[in-house]
Amino acid sequence: MARVNESNSGSDVLSLESIRESLIRQEDTIVFSLIERSQFPLNSPAFEDSGNLSSSLTEFFVREIEVLQAKVGRYENPEENPFFLEYIPHSVFPTHKYPTVLHPKALSVNINKRIWDVYFKEVLPLFVKPGDDGNYPSTAASDLACLQALSRRIHYGKFVAEVKFRDAPQDYEPAIRAKDTEALMKLLTFEKVEEMVKKRVQKKAETFGQEVKCISSDSSDESEKKYKVDPLVVSRIYGEWLIPLTKLVEVEYLLRRLD
Amino acid sequence: MARVNESNSGSDVLSLESIRESLIRQEDTIVFSLIERSQFPLNSPAFEDSGNLSSSLTEFFVREIEVLQAKVGRYENPEENPFFLEYIPHSVFPTHKYPTVLHPKALSVNINKRIWDVYFKEVLPLFVKPGDDGNYPSTAASDLACLQALSRRIHYGKFVAEVKFRDAPQDYEPAIRAKDTEALMKLLTFEKVEEMVKKRVQKKAETFGQEVKCISSDSSDESEKKYKVDPLVVSRIYGEWLIPLTKLVEVEYLLRRLD
Repeated sequence: MARVNESNSGSDVLSLESIRESLIRQEDTIVFSLIERSQFPLNSPAFEDSGNLSSSLTEFFVREIEVLQAKVGRYENPEENPFFLEYIPHSVFPTHKYPTVLHPKALSVNINKRIWDVYFKEVLPLFVKPGDDGNYPSTAASDLACLQALSRRIHYGKFVAEVKFRDAPQDYEPAIRAKDTEALMKLLTFEKVEEMVKKRVQKKAETFGQEVKCISSDSSDESEKKYKVDPLVVSRIYGEWLIPLTKLVEVEYLLRRLD
Repeated sequence: MARVNESNSGSDVLSLESIRESLIRQEDTIVFSLIERSQFPLNSPAFEDSGNLSSSLTEFFVREIEVLQAKVGRYENPEENPFFLEYIPHSVFPTHKYPTVLHPKALSVNINKRIWDVYFKEVLPLFVKPGDDGNYPSTAASDLACLQALSRRIHYGKFVAEVKFRDAPQDYEPAIRAKDTEALMKLLTFEKVEEMVKKRVQKKAETFGQEVKCISSDSSDESEKKYKVDPLVVSRIYGEWLIPLTKLVEVEYLLRRLD
């Protein structure tokens, strides 16, 4: 995670370039986390609503981990957004002062409820085998890693929006004042860039999800290669959910940018 | 993590082959976790002893996470060994029945105190940049992932020892009865295999730690490639600590195998 402004507090180094670098690095983290999760089958009893009042194992686990991470200061970092905001306590350790980059009235944008639903209902079944092997503790830990990596990437849209706004406020202000989400979405969409991202994450899934052997196998047929997570699925996860949800965060952020 | 016996409860499928597969798969997890940790500098104030009675941030974090993971049943799994055993509560969720594979009098072997020291004092400074960026919450989360991956691999030595013992009890029994750790260590050492493992993890660090670009760069000079974690350091971590500590667990386990 490349952090904005870190080594240059005082001067403003929020740039599209540093944000781009962070997003590219976060792709590796996301692909790693999907590969790790794919070791376990769906294991739906871990996260399914039990129907009664008690939480699922995964919900309990993620909520309590977030409480604990808050105690060591995780959510002082504007890049991190909790799934269970209403439970988050203050840090019990001295906290780092992160630079103020985001607009104060807009920085609380949080679409984690939506990310949670999308992840368990749409994304997860695409890249794990169906079934139930009972190993819920490891599964929940892997789901947490995926959820946090996806959430960080999607909410990074706040930084993207901030830098784009600063670069050309005149382009955004009319649409913001008119609350014209469609116009904002259009301003934020660059199809060529999105296609490039989808291709790159596909390649990362091929690279990181291959079986690495001692002896180089350059001569082997590429089409026979087996991957831990289907690279086309990773590309699709980006195209159908990660990129659109990031843009949704950007729009939500911009709508409050002049407040 | 390939789990022993899982899909064949009833019949005994503990085999050197299934253990080998799990150890190879765990290499990917370990390399991923080192790469993720290398995003942050050493950040030693997070884990250094403060000198007074209170725990360091990282110690507090790992201990409390383990308590929470125990509540969802993590340590019912014989592959998982806590760092803070004395704090571990019972699970509050119904737990999975893991097959009994290990010898009951020997399965409690736990060298995590040693792993903790080795990790923070010797291993970590080798693959992260020196310095302190204040981002302790993310650093502690990454350290936890490394510690758990290393601990699982090292304690997997219990399964290795069990299957080797079952394969040829006559080879091991005299040395066990004589408490001859040196003879046991000799029986458990296969230098060729160790060299192969070291080469393979080096290749994994090259593969998973490279910068993946959209456009294939097969023509570029290999020697110019930059890796997120030095592949030779990963090989050295295996050769100097991971393999010897795994064998230490194997010896400790075997010494109790006839109890």
